[in-house]
Amino acid sequence: LKIVLVGASGTIGKAIVKELGARHEIVAAGSRTGDVRLDITDPVSIRTAYRQIGRFDAVVCAAGRVHFAPLASMTADYYAVGLKDKLMGQVNLVLLGLESINDGGSFTLTSGVLTDDPIVSGSSASMVNGAIEAWVGAAAIELPRGIRINVVSPGVLVESMDKYASFFRGHEPVPASRAALAYSKSVEGAQTGKVYRVL
Amino acid sequence: LKIVLVGASGTIGKAIVKELGARHEIVAAGSRTGDVRLDITDPVSIRTAYRQIGRFDAVVCAAGRVHFAPLASMTADYYAVGLKDKLMGQVNLVLLGLESINDGGSFTLTSGVLTDDPIVSGSSASMVNGAIEAWVGAAAIELPRGIRINVVSPGVLVESMDKYASFFRGHEPVPASRAALAYSKSVEGAQTGKVYRVL
Repeated sequence: LKIVLVGASGTIGKAIVKELGARHEIVAAGSRTGDVRLDITDPVSIRTAYRQIGRFDAVVCAAGRVHFAPLASMTADYYAVGLKDKLMGQVNLVLLGLESINDGGSFTLTSGVLTDDPIVSGSSASMVNGAIEAWVGAAAIELPRGIRINVVSPGVLVESMDKYASFFRGHEPVPASRAALAYSKSVEGAQTGKVYRVL
Repeated sequence: LKIVLVGASGTIGKAIVKELGARHEIVAAGSRTGDVRLDITDPVSIRTAYRQIGRFDAVVCAAGRVHFAPLASMTADYYAVGLKDKLMGQVNLVLLGLESINDGGSFTLTSGVLTDDPIVSGSSASMVNGAIEAWVGAAAIELPRGIRINVVSPGVLVESMDKYASFFRGHEPVPASRAALAYSKSVEGAQTGKVYRVL
């Protein structure tokens, strides 16, 4: 399969390359690195990248930013960061990728554990993750040509605990290699409309 | 209790007035009708309304629009309608209401059955409902002064079936009076961070 991997240079992205790279052709797309430049917050950049890549069988997105801050300091502008980046960035990857994806292809997006296991300062992440998960379920029933869509919801990563441990006290961290298995299940399996929780 | 009811003139709003109006003081807020003008898509309008109302014990929101259309015709702009209106409109009601709500007060928002029971043309509603439900869970753990927050997720209403039946085939419609009970539970109970599904 020819797999477009957005966020290939990140912690999860690297683990996905390790898991899927041996069996498939990976086109690494990133805002600063990779085979193709792709900024998910910019629809023009997404269109340009897809045009360069040509036809493909799968898109995997392991990218997306949100603003972390205490609820008391959150504003509409801070929420807009996550809505534009991690939410609509991933949605636009799907909407704009539909014309280049092969029959029976798949999209695999990323949410995260905060959907229903919230932490202090994580209200934007919870909002965006909840939106992605519900949207994937809805999109799945309308995609044409046997195209599938799933979302992986990983817990906090072992590899990120040096940065995030104080936010995620009591959370059981997950190795990126375990999260990568869920992306494999989505891309190489046949399910659609699923949320794969890696906890 | 002094309860600010946004969307009091709608089908659910009227049922909430019937359920809660006999026991409490209802301040009806709406974009075109009610005791106070309040347009949830406009933060200035929300601030102005709250200033007119003074202190209160609860906000109930039964308002919020999204764009319904087949996935193939959905664009970022159409998704922006729901993100600005039903999602950030309700979030802003909470963020901007925090300074006027009394200790131990409550916010009750509205999502809907499409979060995890999607229909064709409803992908924006699913997105927004999923976002609200997850956000409410996250906001609940950060609200100060004993302030609570919940969300009611009603199924399609009996009263709306003449308009929506063809979109919701097979869905069991719910009388607005049953949905109103969930708002009562949220306002008059003591729970927080809950999604009340009225199915």
